[in-house]
Amino acid sequence: MDHEKNLSRLNRLTKEISLLTHTFSVLGWDQETYMPENAAAERSEQSSLISRLIHQRASSSEMEQVLSDLGCSESTPDGDKSLPDHSRRLLRRAYKSYKDAVKLPEELVSELAEHSSISQINWAKAKNRNDFSLFRPYLEKMIDLLIRKSEILGYESHRYDALLDQFEPWTRTTEIKSVFNRLQPELTGLLNKISGCKQVDDSILHRKWDIKRQKELSHFILKEMNFDFTMGRIDESEHPFTATLGGSDIRLTTRYDKHYFNMGLYGTMHEGGHGLYEQGIPGQMRGTALGECASLAIHESQSRLWENMIGRSMEFFTAYYGKIAEIFPEPAGGYSAEEMFKAVNMVKPSLIRVEADEVTYGLHIILRFRLELQLLEGSVAVKDLPEAWNELSRELLGIVPDCDAAGVLQDVHWSFGGVGYFPTYTLGNLYSAQFLNSMNKDLDVSKQISSGKLLPVLNWLRENIHGRGALYSGPELCRLVTGEDLNPDYFMNYLNDKYDRIYNFNR
Amino acid sequence: MDHEKNLSRLNRLTKEISLLTHTFSVLGWDQETYMPENAAAERSEQSSLISRLIHQRASSSEMEQVLSDLGCSESTPDGDKSLPDHSRRLLRRAYKSYKDAVKLPEELVSELAEHSSISQINWAKAKNRNDFSLFRPYLEKMIDLLIRKSEILGYESHRYDALLDQFEPWTRTTEIKSVFNRLQPELTGLLNKISGCKQVDDSILHRKWDIKRQKELSHFILKEMNFDFTMGRIDESEHPFTATLGGSDIRLTTRYDKHYFNMGLYGTMHEGGHGLYEQGIPGQMRGTALGECASLAIHESQSRLWENMIGRSMEFFTAYYGKIAEIFPEPAGGYSAEEMFKAVNMVKPSLIRVEADEVTYGLHIILRFRLELQLLEGSVAVKDLPEAWNELSRELLGIVPDCDAAGVLQDVHWSFGGVGYFPTYTLGNLYSAQFLNSMNKDLDVSKQISSGKLLPVLNWLRENIHGRGALYSGPELCRLVTGEDLNPDYFMNYLNDKYDRIYNFNR
Repeated sequence: MDHEKNLSRLNRLTKEISLLTHTFSVLGWDQETYMPENAAAERSEQSSLISRLIHQRASSSEMEQVLSDLGCSESTPDGDKSLPDHSRRLLRRAYKSYKDAVKLPEELVSELAEHSSISQINWAKAKNRNDFSLFRPYLEKMIDLLIRKSEILGYESHRYDALLDQFEPWTRTTEIKSVFNRLQPELTGLLNKISGCKQVDDSILHRKWDIKRQKELSHFILKEMNFDFTMGRIDESEHPFTATLGGSDIRLTTRYDKHYFNMGLYGTMHEGGHGLYEQGIPGQMRGTALGECASLAIHESQSRLWENMIGRSMEFFTAYYGKIAEIFPEPAGGYSAEEMFKAVNMVKPSLIRVEADEVTYGLHIILRFRLELQLLEGSVAVKDLPEAWNELSRELLGIVPDCDAAGVLQDVHWSFGGVGYFPTYTLGNLYSAQFLNSMNKDLDVSKQISSGKLLPVLNWLRENIHGRGALYSGPELCRLVTGEDLNPDYFMNYLNDKYDRIYNFNR
Repeated sequence: MDHEKNLSRLNRLTKEISLLTHTFSVLGWDQETYMPENAAAERSEQSSLISRLIHQRASSSEMEQVLSDLGCSESTPDGDKSLPDHSRRLLRRAYKSYKDAVKLPEELVSELAEHSSISQINWAKAKNRNDFSLFRPYLEKMIDLLIRKSEILGYESHRYDALLDQFEPWTRTTEIKSVFNRLQPELTGLLNKISGCKQVDDSILHRKWDIKRQKELSHFILKEMNFDFTMGRIDESEHPFTATLGGSDIRLTTRYDKHYFNMGLYGTMHEGGHGLYEQGIPGQMRGTALGECASLAIHESQSRLWENMIGRSMEFFTAYYGKIAEIFPEPAGGYSAEEMFKAVNMVKPSLIRVEADEVTYGLHIILRFRLELQLLEGSVAVKDLPEAWNELSRELLGIVPDCDAAGVLQDVHWSFGGVGYFPTYTLGNLYSAQFLNSMNKDLDVSKQISSGKLLPVLNWLRENIHGRGALYSGPELCRLVTGEDLNPDYFMNYLNDKYDRIYNFNR
């Protein structure tokens, strides 16, 4: 059969792209972990060469030919109707990648890559010196480049669609808007309710947590999570991340703070959740258009599920507080599992997104999403961004940063051109709660966790999510796994139950 | 001027090759240091893709065109006679690389790369199980491939020329033969002389040397050697190596043995010597055909100079024994600088090349060189190699391995196809002594070292060797720096003086 031969041809092309993509990740991982400081300029040349090679292959005439031979076109983006469902899903992904790549001129791809690298360096400088003006020209140029990119990629109703689609394929700005519009008053309501309660004591988190022992705990927990160290490892970096250097080579990083317990363990569990997803993508899918995650939001649902729904649950402390106290007899001494559970879940509006609790986190994202829309629409200029940020912060969180380093300059994303990325964080939170709800129909999750049995949870995720690679879009996967569309109620129910337990709303 | 434009065109092509070569090194460095075990198969696919891309570029029609536009041909391999000397030297290198690349069919390059990776794995298995038969078929295939390679590359008088030329450009087998024929009786004579003397006491080396403190010492010594940690680092790996991940990114590795002092420090100083050479190649040469070492033998001359002529000198212990005793009050206690100097220089025939002293080391190399010649000539078959090894070992070293793991299976080189590599080790030793002799005319090396001033030594090497990149071949550089051709007498004089001091020949 001709189609079979053409599918093999396609897979040979995507395999080479995948090898180059993983090579790109090796360069990136090394850059963030072990690379000596003066190697940055050359590394950026190496990375941009590899990304140019990827783009050339993704937009090549061979790729066009094989996709066309398989029946892919504007009207049938998933190929010939006679093909089996699995192949059509693969073709849909492959055709989408090809279309996106071929639309973007190599010159714009290079310019974006180079500006991204320069812009990140200047963002870091601006943040360090707490001086937005140092970053402003770079962000202005970045927004211009992104507007050009969105115009070239095309969109239905909003420029933002084109950018969002790169991270969250087939999800639209209006859908995010409507979800966020539903979510925001609920989060604000819950935050107000909590603010009326007696605050929990989180002093335990700020005692002295020996870093060598924190590393031991991180390894222990990753092993409990069944992260496979024969095909992965954990290191340290300034900003935690997960990178796929190969289907059997998943690298996590975390960071440790001697005086803040949450940083190390929850960084580890968060990235561990990402890592388990990557390790769960079937080997036979790797190298094909299906051998990757469904979307960034689905990815984030996995990290958040392990970090928050498992790692910050009372059940987790029931199972593991003994181990924590054994590794850290000093700082954990005199505290109970319940007290520590409450401490790690303290809700309090704060300036820094990555340190935000589960309630205010979503508000941080909504702030960024609104500003991104305005930047692309041109209704806010980059020069007015700090002021716009501060106003929105007052509106949504009730607090205003006293400096731009703790405000508009806090996140790296805009500096590398990641406009459209932030919403996936909140979508991930929402998906995770909805998945957890479905998981609970198949197994007693609380019972498993509180007895320290995390494998059944992982197996459920593997079967329902990881093992499906990129067969489905985020929304499709959600319907398939949970039987309904994304519904923020699951997340709000989860938050309300959890914080009622912690803050005793009816007392 | 047209030539200038063409030289820029050429440099753009070599720059891309250089970026890919460095990317290849990132993959390799990671593989030997931090890569999880199950990632090996994919890593080898990534590496072989990158090496294919390098080969394509090195043998491309653009490359052919620009070299021909610059006047390169069989009769004028260094290009148009009107070009300045510097450019003609660059063209000579570039044309040589092109000719070598274009001669080798991509299919053979791939086959060699793949077989090299499989063969290394089976070599390691065979060595672990001490069973040569497990490696034999892979080595047989490797020798066949290398014979094919040498026939394709072409040679004047001996197949070996073609392989040697890959590591030691423009050096011929007959030259090595004649140098080794001169060297061997001298080494044997010196070894016999030493065997008649009272043996030194090396028990200090086998006391307990805390590994964390060994690392501290390694860092200290590298700093003393003026290794630049802003453009390099040191890690650990099973076999020490130096890798160039970028002109400003030189990575060393070493390994530590708690019960053998020499392993850590001298591994570090050896690789440190390689690293200083790489760090000393001028930035403006990088990315061009001149932005690399002159040859592997010249590289080895740098590592050996720092490891042996500096690190194993009495002057070194005069300067640094205090520091060693400060870091290691326990194992160094009760010993003098002089005693430690003698211990690290103990001469004794042993089975393992990498642990050999400076006298017997050359005999190990001569053994391998002879066998390589016979393998390529077909006068010894792979199946008879263990026996041939053992016989030569008896003849040259007076001892016979009791197992193949400590004999024919000890080195990785043949498994990756590195036939022609071994002689560069001994050439390196010879060059280093000849360079040291010249250095002594410009500065009082002993005085500098014994007062812990290593920068003048480095500066001399930078000016005379490192800063010249690949402008000269090994023999040319030798003549330029020392005023004469390679002359083994310098090395023998160095050895005779050193060991007379240690063993007191006339007593």
